[in-house]
Amino acid sequence: MPSLHARTSLSAESIFSRMSRLALQHGAINLGQGFPSNPPPTFLLEAARQAVGTVDQYSPPIGLPLLREAVAQDLEVNAEQVVITCGATEAMLALAQTLYGAGDEVIAFEPVFDIYVPQTEIVGAKFVGVPMVLGAAGWELDIDALRQAITPRTKALIINSPFNPTGSIFTRAELQAVVDLARQHDFWLISDEVYDELYYAERPISLRTLAPERTFTVGSAGKRLEATGWRIGWIITPEGLAPEVAGLHQWTTFCAPAPLQAAVASALIEARQNGFYDQLRASYAARMQSLAAGLRQLGAEVFTPQGTYFLTARLPNVNAEELVIRGGVAVIPMSAFYRQHAAPPDMMRFAFCKKEAEIQEALRRLKTFLER
Amino acid sequence: MPSLHARTSLSAESIFSRMSRLALQHGAINLGQGFPSNPPPTFLLEAARQAVGTVDQYSPPIGLPLLREAVAQDLEVNAEQVVITCGATEAMLALAQTLYGAGDEVIAFEPVFDIYVPQTEIVGAKFVGVPMVLGAAGWELDIDALRQAITPRTKALIINSPFNPTGSIFTRAELQAVVDLARQHDFWLISDEVYDELYYAERPISLRTLAPERTFTVGSAGKRLEATGWRIGWIITPEGLAPEVAGLHQWTTFCAPAPLQAAVASALIEARQNGFYDQLRASYAARMQSLAAGLRQLGAEVFTPQGTYFLTARLPNVNAEELVIRGGVAVIPMSAFYRQHAAPPDMMRFAFCKKEAEIQEALRRLKTFLER
Repeated sequence: MPSLHARTSLSAESIFSRMSRLALQHGAINLGQGFPSNPPPTFLLEAARQAVGTVDQYSPPIGLPLLREAVAQDLEVNAEQVVITCGATEAMLALAQTLYGAGDEVIAFEPVFDIYVPQTEIVGAKFVGVPMVLGAAGWELDIDALRQAITPRTKALIINSPFNPTGSIFTRAELQAVVDLARQHDFWLISDEVYDELYYAERPISLRTLAPERTFTVGSAGKRLEATGWRIGWIITPEGLAPEVAGLHQWTTFCAPAPLQAAVASALIEARQNGFYDQLRASYAARMQSLAAGLRQLGAEVFTPQGTYFLTARLPNVNAEELVIRGGVAVIPMSAFYRQHAAPPDMMRFAFCKKEAEIQEALRRLKTFLER
Repeated sequence: MPSLHARTSLSAESIFSRMSRLALQHGAINLGQGFPSNPPPTFLLEAARQAVGTVDQYSPPIGLPLLREAVAQDLEVNAEQVVITCGATEAMLALAQTLYGAGDEVIAFEPVFDIYVPQTEIVGAKFVGVPMVLGAAGWELDIDALRQAITPRTKALIINSPFNPTGSIFTRAELQAVVDLARQHDFWLISDEVYDELYYAERPISLRTLAPERTFTVGSAGKRLEATGWRIGWIITPEGLAPEVAGLHQWTTFCAPAPLQAAVASALIEARQNGFYDQLRASYAARMQSLAAGLRQLGAEVFTPQGTYFLTARLPNVNAEELVIRGGVAVIPMSAFYRQHAAPPDMMRFAFCKKEAEIQEALRRLKTFLER
């Protein structure tokens, strides 16, 4: 047989899939992969039941006009700037294809959400990781380290706020420093804001509002509406660039699932009107407190997240693989989020988008596991 | 601003999107883009209404186990060989990423379904078009021309049977000749079989059955079940290679829409049991006959298709752009399917996946347009 392409070196199963598979296999509580235990809201499900049978054929590659309008209204941008994709994952790939390739460098912060690295490498560019620092207030950007990582080949910087896996939300000062560097060295900004409605104190600032001319924002209906398997994402482009992005996206998936696009269009409007996001935040805040308190009782050092449905904690002498197989609890070891730097030791990511009863059962199992 | 990547030279709106847009704008009957006017079957819609609210989170990247099983059963392969994708478009991209890149050549026949060319170029490989010939029996493969196009850099050949845009179905002898060349020169075979259930005489032979060791087969629930906007496709890989393909697909879209995967899983089984495909073929055969007869009455030379829901016809002195704007009928000019060779003059592709009334109205408008 002929050889496969060298890209298949990136084909390994991700840590998320692996941990979910092991969790299933060993009957573990899955605090690893970030998908909610609760079902999506009924207004989304009802909208989908009505959409199938009426919106079943190709949408324009750039997206169903109704959904582009709904996203634009929700995010206060022009509908002409919106491109609809098959989830935020495809949104990130479409941007990689639009913006960079061989000879270019792309910066992101470590710990890094895993897809940024293989997507950068698939299009032939080089990933450059800049480590976050653990300061007095928890995880922080290291602007000096970022400045040192910039070269004449830096083509883009990927920022993620609220930040998976740490749950950090970057301050206006941190974002402004990033924007100043991007303007000074003339690179693009990609702002992955899929957790934009999941914050527990101040509302996150969108990077786009500070640098509309060079920021591509990525969003996700799956994260906002508790339906991670629906694959509806979006990109807000700088003015005039949506057709360029949609033009490459048409060769990637042609268009996003049309009936689900229609359902999300109506649900985005309803969610904003009926207080859904407020309820979601309150519910997640309670679960986060309960997981954090339980972990602290077990002796863990917990870094309280400002957003997302993840928290990071230090739990010495626990091996994640052993924990899922023998302890019945799946988590993600922090080392999975590091490529070019060392992970802080004993650190893990816990997903709290699970039912309160699952969180409590996970804490009980963890206690038993630690006592062995 | 920094520059966009050179890939954006491939961002132009496709002829299909353009013609659909013009059709909408000018109130034209759309015999251009290949999406059905009829709704999907009720058993598919019902299955989707039940799936939302129960299968809403990420599926494994390789696909929902139930759907992999259903596809495997339907196509008589092992479920381990099946990868589920966001439509056949993403399936083709995942294969391009898995199999070839810079320095490789990829052969396909012209007229060529448009996505093969930009997808080949996006991953850095070179597209090589081999022209079909118009023989006594209509469109035919030119095996000598294929042989001459093969070089030591040939990494894969894309074949499409039933063939869009011509509606040809390749014979066993033609497919065997292709397989012999692939084995002799050791290249991969990609067989795009999205129209596998749309045939009007003999059932198409799947290339996979002749060369299981090197053939990747692509299929589409959207084409089979009249739901082109649902974005559920699949790949059948040679034994052992599904994880390699799924491993790259996880960085492209992560997974296909989960509730729609569940719906398609049950609908594929039901469609096989309840005679849906027989009815679909009968219904399309009638519409094809009616379009072909109408076009012949208008003086067109019609090349009767053996499969797909497209037919090609020669209609001298008709400009497709003028026809959609002034004549109110959208078709695709054959020149849109040629990259390296000249299209036969005056040739167009007509989609007959439209209602009989639309076909008749299109024929009336065409008559008026020709009489001017």
